[in-house]
This record gives sequence, C-alpha cells and structure tokens, in this order.
Amino acid sequence: MSRTSLSVLGSTGSIGRSALDIVLKHPDRFKVLGMAAGKNLEVTLEQARLFEPEILSVAEEVYSSCKESLFGSGIKVLSGEEGAVAVAAYPGAEVLLSAIVGDAGLPPTWEGILPGRTIALANKETLVAGGSAVMGRIREKGARLVPVDSEHSAIYQAMKGHDWKSVRRVILTASGGPMFGKTKEEMAHVTVEEALNHPTWRMGPKITIDSATLMNKGLEVIEARWLFDLPSEKIEVVVHRQSIIHSLVELVDGSVLAQMGVPDMRGPISYAISGDERLVLDVKSLDLVLLGQMTFHHPDHEAFPSIRHAYRALERGGQSCLWLNAANEVAVAHFLEGKIPFSLIARIQGEVLEQAPVFEARTLDEIRKSGKAARNKAQELAEKYAGTEEIPGNPNHNGQMAAPVPGGARRN
Amino acid sequence: MSRTSLSVLGSTGSIGRSALDIVLKHPDRFKVLGMAAGKNLEVTLEQARLFEPEILSVAEEVYSSCKESLFGSGIKVLSGEEGAVAVAAYPGAEVLLSAIVGDAGLPPTWEGILPGRTIALANKETLVAGGSAVMGRIREKGARLVPVDSEHSAIYQAMKGHDWKSVRRVILTASGGPMFGKTKEEMAHVTVEEALNHPTWRMGPKITIDSATLMNKGLEVIEARWLFDLPSEKIEVVVHRQSIIHSLVELVDGSVLAQMGVPDMRGPISYAISGDERLVLDVKSLDLVLLGQMTFHHPDHEAFPSIRHAYRALERGGQSCLWLNAANEVAVAHFLEGKIPFSLIARIQGEVLEQAPVFEARTLDEIRKSGKAARNKAQELAEKYAGTEEIPGNPNHNGQMAAPVPGGARRN
Repeated sequence: MSRTSLSVLGSTGSIGRSALDIVLKHPDRFKVLGMAAGKNLEVTLEQARLFEPEILSVAEEVYSSCKESLFGSGIKVLSGEEGAVAVAAYPGAEVLLSAIVGDAGLPPTWEGILPGRTIALANKETLVAGGSAVMGRIREKGARLVPVDSEHSAIYQAMKGHDWKSVRRVILTASGGPMFGKTKEEMAHVTVEEALNHPTWRMGPKITIDSATLMNKGLEVIEARWLFDLPSEKIEVVVHRQSIIHSLVELVDGSVLAQMGVPDMRGPISYAISGDERLVLDVKSLDLVLLGQMTFHHPDHEAFPSIRHAYRALERGGQSCLWLNAANEVAVAHFLEGKIPFSLIARIQGEVLEQAPVFEARTLDEIRKSGKAARNKAQELAEKYAGTEEIPGNPNHNGQMAAPVPGGARRN
Repeated sequence: MSRTSLSVLGSTGSIGRSALDIVLKHPDRFKVLGMAAGKNLEVTLEQARLFEPEILSVAEEVYSSCKESLFGSGIKVLSGEEGAVAVAAYPGAEVLLSAIVGDAGLPPTWEGILPGRTIALANKETLVAGGSAVMGRIREKGARLVPVDSEHSAIYQAMKGHDWKSVRRVILTASGGPMFGKTKEEMAHVTVEEALNHPTWRMGPKITIDSATLMNKGLEVIEARWLFDLPSEKIEVVVHRQSIIHSLVELVDGSVLAQMGVPDMRGPISYAISGDERLVLDVKSLDLVLLGQMTFHHPDHEAFPSIRHAYRALERGGQSCLWLNAANEVAVAHFLEGKIPFSLIARIQGEVLEQAPVFEARTLDEIRKSGKAARNKAQELAEKYAGTEEIPGNPNHNGQMAAPVPGGARRN
C-alpha cells in the first residue's frame, strides 16, 4: 500500500502531536507533506527534522529563527495566517488534519478544501462559524469531511456500515466538566483555577473553559448538525462523568450503537487520517470491571446555559452560531484574564447571539467580517461588565458570600 | 422491493412469535412460507390463518386436530421431527429462522442449510453441538449464518462495516442471572422457583435455568467462537446487571464498539431476518438518564463454574462442547423435576465433558449419536446423584443449613 500524504495544521498542539506520534509509529502508512505550527519553536524544529515536510509555517514571532535553523534543509518556511493557508492549500496532500484551535483554524481549513481530499476536522470553529458555507464548499469541491472530535468520531465510527436514514437520534456524551453538580448560584464564583481543572482530558485553556461552561458540548451539537445533516431535535446531550462512552446513535429499530474506550485522542485521530482503517495503537484496553460503573445525567441547563444557547442559535439560524462562537471566544479570553466572572461567559454568549444577522454568511470573507462584528459586540459587553463580581441582573445574589454547599449539590 | 420469503422453526415459541409480530407489522417486507410449531394448537391455528404458510408442522400429539382444523385451507400439514425437517428443507424460503429450543432444533436447522439462504439462528445448540460441522456445511452450501441471540447480534451489528481482522477481543455481557452475588455455598440450596425468576428476560424454563447457572453464557462463548471464527482467548464475559449493553467488540486501535438498547428481542430478530435492514419497530427508546447507571463485574467462576466449563470444552475440542451441552440438558431437566440440587448441574456438566471423544463429529448422524451417548452418561450421573441434598465431595458443606447471608454476598 502506498503511503498517505498528510498535512497537519496545528502540528505542535495536542491533536497535532498525537497525529505525528501515530505517523511515527506507522512510517509505512503516512508521509508528512506540510505542517503549520505555532510559537513553539523547539517542538516545531524537532518535528521538521523528524518528518521532513516540503512546506512549514510558523507564527510570525519565531519565523526568522525557524528559517535560519532550517537553512539548507530544503523545507519551505512560511509564517502567519498566510503561511498556514499556503500549507493547507499546498497540493498533493490526500489528507489535511485541521487542528489549529479557535477562529484561526477557519481560513486555512476553508482554503484546504480541495477536490478528492479528506479533511480530518479537529477545529470546532470551522463548522460552528461556517456551517452551511463549509458544507457547501465540501460538496462543491468533492472533498470529504471526517470528524476528529471524540464525540463525532464515535458517531461516525458507530454509523460506519449503517444507513443514516435509519437514525432516530444521536446522543452526544459530556463529561460534565469540572463544575459538574454546582448550582447556578455557585457558578457565579468559579475561579480560573477551578475551571481549568478538567477531570478527564488534558487540553488547552480555551477548550477546558468551554468544557467547564459546557459550551464545548453546545459547539458539538452545532457541529453534529452540519457533519451529519441532522435537525437539532435529533441531537441530544447526556452527562456521562466517566467519559468512556464517547457518543451513541439510536436507530429506528430501537438499537443503539455506541463507540467507547479509554479516553485517548489517538483513536479518533488515526481513524480520521487513515481513511477508516484500524491502525494498531498501543491504546489501553477498556477494563469495564475496573471501571465498575458508568453513570448518566441530564445536563443542568440552569447552571450551564451554554448548551441551550447552542440550540437557540441553531433554531435562530443565519449567523447566530457564528456570533455565539465569537462571543464565547471573547468572553472566555476575558474570564481567563480575570476581567469577568465565570457566569458572565454564558450571559455574553446569550446576548450576542440574539443580535446576529438572520441571513447566512456564504463566503470566507463574509464569515470573517461577521465574526469581527460579533467579537466587537462581545468586547463591548465584556468591558461593560468588566470588574463586576456580581452577576448583573440577578437579584438573588446581592453581596452573598461565595460559600460552596459542601457536597450537597453534587449529584452522583 | 419484493417481499422476503421466510420460514419459521419454532413459530409458537417466544422468538417465533416476536418474528411473526414483525412480519405482521411489515406485510410489504415479508411473506411466511413455512412454519414449524409445537404443541400449542390454539396459537398454531391462529398463526396459520393469519400468515397462510404453504407448509406447517406441529407436534405429533396435536397433528390430527390441526389437520382437521385446517382442512381445505391448502396448507400442507406435517408433524414431528420429520415435519420440522420438511418445513426447514422446503425450498423457496430465502430466510430460515431457526428458533426451536434445545437439541430438537439441530436436525431441521442442519437440513435447512440451502444454497444462498440466510439462516437466522436463535437455536444455541446448533453451533454448540455442531460447531465445526455446521460452519463447514454453511460454507459448502454457500449459505449465510446470522445470529439472533441478543449478544451475538450485538457483535454482528457493531461489526457491520468494520474489518474482522481488526478485532482485539469481543466482550459478551451477562445479566448475571437471578443468582448473582450468591456464594458457592449458597448455590447448593437454590430452589427451582428461585432459579426460574430471571431479572430481565422472560424465557422458557430451560433457558432461564441456563441463565441462572450462567451456562447460557458458556454456550454463547462457544457460539461466538464458531460464528465469528475467533479463538477463545479473544472472547470474554462480563456481568452487566442492567442488560442494556448487549455486547461489545474491542478493535486493535483501542476503540470499543457496542450495541445496546432496552431489552427487546424484536431488534435482533428483525435485523437478522431483514438482511441487515433497520425496520421501524415500536421498541422503546433507551433512556440513559432514567437508567442512571450501568455496572460491570467479573463472573464468579467459583459459584458459577459453567462458563469455565465452556472454555474448557473449547480447549479440549473434539466433541467436548456437544457433550457439555447434552449433559447440561439432562442435568437441567433433572433439576427442574426436583431430582437433583442446583449445584449438581455444573458438576454433571464438568464430569461429562471430560469423557467426550476428542475427535470431531462431522455429520448430523454422528452429532446425534454422540449427543445420545453424552445424555446417557449424564443420565447415569444424575441418577447416581438423585435425591442427594448435599454436594458430594464438598467437605465444607456437610450438613450445614442453607442460611442465606443477608445482603452480604451481593455485590453492587
């Protein structure tokens, strides 16, 4: 079998590194054609020497050092968004792994949609912001979109060999995040440290906060809507603390197909980049007895309004999901900088999404302009609320102490 | 789409009735060509009038009443094993549902293996007794064997679209039966009533006792070995009290695929008889949150030696599985008649299997003769042990009271 040529956007991030780890263990299966990295020069250089891509892009601030270090290597070195787009659009890669985090992932992913190519999508924003336009472009170019997210990969894996017309509903599982069991009142006083302490997955700070607000799951609902062409009524979320079942699909005959396993992103990554092949990975076997039990809860929409916002954005249509997502990025950044309390993240999401245009953004340019407008709105709101420790408009919370209820609100 | 022609062996049993219920709800999908029923004349006649098969077989004792009642209907009425075999071998049925319980199911299933035909197999004994010979006949005739058992169907459904070469192991789930949590000592004093009280499935008495001893699961391990051509090291059993996950498959990349749902046999039956189509069934949706939790335990091989006997029989080879199964049928019958205590069922299994010939039975005739020899051996042992309340050879149990440990031994 000839080797699959692969380009990786976000090669020094957690998904990118895992992907390159798989490539390293399966040198007969893959060759790396292009890489887009960030600011981590050390890891970038190590990867460049190991995988010898034809083209490499890094962040502006490390460009000259990188170019100098790789002088004579024959690797074409570029930088910034333009560089990432050039890596994405570089022809010859059969598979493009899109794993740049956040809004920055959209332009290269968009430009990387080429005829016959498989886009292994780890970047959430591509479908959340671009939804209809991205799917249109995928169809138009004759490309293929495969999920890398563990939840969507689970559904994709479970449905392999089954007819999508037979789907009664899909059930996305959520770990519940580090705030699981907290009441609406307690959520007002969550600190940055608490929110960054995710029980299962080690991820970047933005995604970890999204997991704490459950916005992560909201974004996944939106992604599922586009990836699987399902109406939002057929998409459910259930809290499963152990993160063992990665998601489920119920069919019209009552049969439920699920994909599960020890949490390890190498599974979904390798399935996506290998064209549905099962590569031998040293992923630990699932020990159900050691696990002992799996539990299931409804998400608490009072304490975690973000999932509801995602459904609302889908219902509202137009650019609502895009605005919701942009608002979330701004709000999370403000929270991480200590400028706004935790509970304001969801509030800013909710207020901004209701101001989104109700017609669709159709081009990358329209999406970016719309995103900018949304971010400005969110910025305004965040500044307006900055420094407030209280939740504005919540009469139950005037000057109360942030006394956690010991154990009481935590459900089992 | 033209209707699938179907013959049903065991039409008045629980699987047969469920199958005919599916046919009734999907009259555009199926037509019934043949039916083999038992002694239940009322249900047989009702089914005959509703589905108008071309050929029908009943138990000897109701033959004349049946023939009389159906006089002028154009239905060919036969009786006994010969009748069941004639129904099975009746040409034109694209799908043969083999759902006669026990050893009696083997001859018609064997004779029903015809070129191009799908055998939807609910009868456990066919593969347990016939294993190698049956699979050889399936290949030779160019037929197709599809499981109806919920566990094997789960594996079959989960693996649809996936490569069997990628299987790391399969995990059969077991409800644990009504005796779950009992110690070896307590098992000696289980009554017929206790053993017949299955927590999840309503089934015939033989299968319910097999579920209490976990022999049921042992037989399923043997079936899985043949159905999926897997060595026994790749087949595991885990106790899952809620019977929601019907079984699982782990692949070489660590991914675990599972099929689950509210226990309802119509799911696996319809998947098997429809050629992997998802028929719309009014099977209840799985409510994970209402369920709350799923638990997993190792089977207790001390208290329930039957699963170990199945692995031992596979390891020993030859006619060991056949002898194990025949011994079990005899021992269960003796237990149900109150002639031997519960714990002797497993003991008889274990002793008889070790006396089995180590060469394979290759024809239906050889299988039947071997089964008869095994049953004679089991009969001898059962008679030898009959009336003993004590477990012979167990020094820990001389004359102790059958005092159940209240709650203590029941694991959660």
